[in-house]
Amino acid sequence: MQRVRRRTPQDFDRVLSSMCTVPHPDAQEEAVRFLSANPGDPATYQTVAELEGEAVDLLGKIAGLDRPEGYLASGGTEANIQAVRAARNLAETDAPNIVAPESAHFSLTKAAEVLDVELRTVPVDDGYRANLDAVSAAVDADTVAVIGVAGTTEYGRVDPIPALTEIAHDAGAKMHVDASWGGFLLPFTDHEWSFADAPIDSMAIDPHKCGQAPVPAGGFLARDRETVDALAVDTPYLETTSQATLTGTRSGAGVAGALAAMEALWPAGYRASYRDQQANADYLAGEFSARGIDTVDPVLPLVAASLAPSTFEALREAGWRISRTATGELRIVCMPHVTREALASFLADLDRIRS
Amino acid sequence: MQRVRRRTPQDFDRVLSSMCTVPHPDAQEEAVRFLSANPGDPATYQTVAELEGEAVDLLGKIAGLDRPEGYLASGGTEANIQAVRAARNLAETDAPNIVAPESAHFSLTKAAEVLDVELRTVPVDDGYRANLDAVSAAVDADTVAVIGVAGTTEYGRVDPIPALTEIAHDAGAKMHVDASWGGFLLPFTDHEWSFADAPIDSMAIDPHKCGQAPVPAGGFLARDRETVDALAVDTPYLETTSQATLTGTRSGAGVAGALAAMEALWPAGYRASYRDQQANADYLAGEFSARGIDTVDPVLPLVAASLAPSTFEALREAGWRISRTATGELRIVCMPHVTREALASFLADLDRIRS
Repeated sequence: MQRVRRRTPQDFDRVLSSMCTVPHPDAQEEAVRFLSANPGDPATYQTVAELEGEAVDLLGKIAGLDRPEGYLASGGTEANIQAVRAARNLAETDAPNIVAPESAHFSLTKAAEVLDVELRTVPVDDGYRANLDAVSAAVDADTVAVIGVAGTTEYGRVDPIPALTEIAHDAGAKMHVDASWGGFLLPFTDHEWSFADAPIDSMAIDPHKCGQAPVPAGGFLARDRETVDALAVDTPYLETTSQATLTGTRSGAGVAGALAAMEALWPAGYRASYRDQQANADYLAGEFSARGIDTVDPVLPLVAASLAPSTFEALREAGWRISRTATGELRIVCMPHVTREALASFLADLDRIRS
Repeated sequence: MQRVRRRTPQDFDRVLSSMCTVPHPDAQEEAVRFLSANPGDPATYQTVAELEGEAVDLLGKIAGLDRPEGYLASGGTEANIQAVRAARNLAETDAPNIVAPESAHFSLTKAAEVLDVELRTVPVDDGYRANLDAVSAAVDADTVAVIGVAGTTEYGRVDPIPALTEIAHDAGAKMHVDASWGGFLLPFTDHEWSFADAPIDSMAIDPHKCGQAPVPAGGFLARDRETVDALAVDTPYLETTSQATLTGTRSGAGVAGALAAMEALWPAGYRASYRDQQANADYLAGEFSARGIDTVDPVLPLVAASLAPSTFEALREAGWRISRTATGELRIVCMPHVTREALASFLADLDRIRS
């Protein structure tokens, strides 16, 4: 046999653009042990199927839902697609549409294209949150779901979920909350975002983001069994009768890792991590402002700031993994692996480049 | 922090129903090192993005394609959905349909439901292969893709791919081959199944099945860039312009593990494994026949045999992980982890139960 060439995964020291992070050590260890198990075939892989049930129950606790329905998805994109798919399948209309703020993740664009559903994007207000009047004007009898974001990808904002839910339900549509990134931070804030804060129907909440689980571990949660049943297809030659997931074979490592992370960190570990992340974001925003750089106030640990394209490129060339908002602002996600020291070093490079 | 309760993943000793297997040690080792990398964000995780390019090139070699387009998917279901999605998006019709033999995997049913495409299933012949006359009769001007299976889930049969491709292209439809399970076995047989055997347009071929890679590692291959471009959506706030995958965040472990497995095993290791698997399947089929049990000839290492439901249940109670075909036959997949000793022990339990 040939020798396998070894590669070194880059470390996270200079990764400021990712919504994933270094997994909790217990989660890493558990994931490794389940790398060859397939929760997509629960009658064959019963152990990991049991772990998935425990993981969904724990996700429900975090999201304010007593008897959660759902499963561990490949990530937020799958969870968002599945929410729209369920809403489409449960609706009567032949011309389904969904309404989402322009701040919604691009996976909603993907979901609409894949599912042949019209996506109606509406403006946000000055605080980068869904404009309620615009949402009300956009919904109609063919609207199958309204999407709200709890922790937007670009500015970390939380849409007015209770008000959006009222608009959705008044229109006979489902209410889906995308908390893929924010879901493990928001329990420690005063924001109204969860199943306990409003009668929302479904949620995307990703252990592999702020849940500090290895990839792939997304979460799709639904209040009612009906939502999951709307996704089920028959499964001959599996010793289970149906499958409601978008993918077939799924990652046992993702399931075992997510459960281990949540068991290790919920709630105290996540609370401590949230406080550190937010403190780092506030520090970074303050340092930007002190340098006269226009900065978007970090409601959650995500900082956006106006930077010249040449400065951005120079920082990338200096080895920093950074990204931009659609309008070109520097965007830094203060994930658990992003230390105060890393941010100070980043600012030093910024000062050197701008001087 | 709470202590994480340790679970023991079941071992594979008695798993006779799975199309996944124990990963190659090099693949396991590489996967572990990339558990927190995300090939879905290539500008941030450049190393794993480079590994994915190498993995796709190697998959192309195995599938007979010189300059392969595509990516490492979560599995065969995603690859099948993406093939149908691309065909639908490239076609002109408002009422798209796909034509597949009844032996096609249930993921085609899922793909049709998700993508709002009509699925026309046609009968198979006495050899469990797509009936060409039935396929010809089913295709029309609204057919966007014909699906052929190279290694069916129930009987391990290989559809007449060149003839199906001719029917598809004569109808102006794309030709997709589902080689999710068979793709790492067929290069060592005389079957016509690959991009080199017929002008097929796309293929599903899964490293995490007979490629002996850890989950999740599926493969989506396309002959032309056009097919992948038909799947692309814009990606603001990623430092890459578009994303053609169905999921967003993806498993770095899957990518690194798949590449390591293929580097270690292609071609000699896979050839040796195929021969052992086929010899075990022939042995098992012979033993069944010697016991007067109706058995479907294993064209590939997959054995189906008629067994009384009570006997099947007794074998499951004895701890064997086995599954059934849609018509109720016992179905045993001779994967690399299934040893001759395990099969002999299974037969001993069978004799005890039937005596």
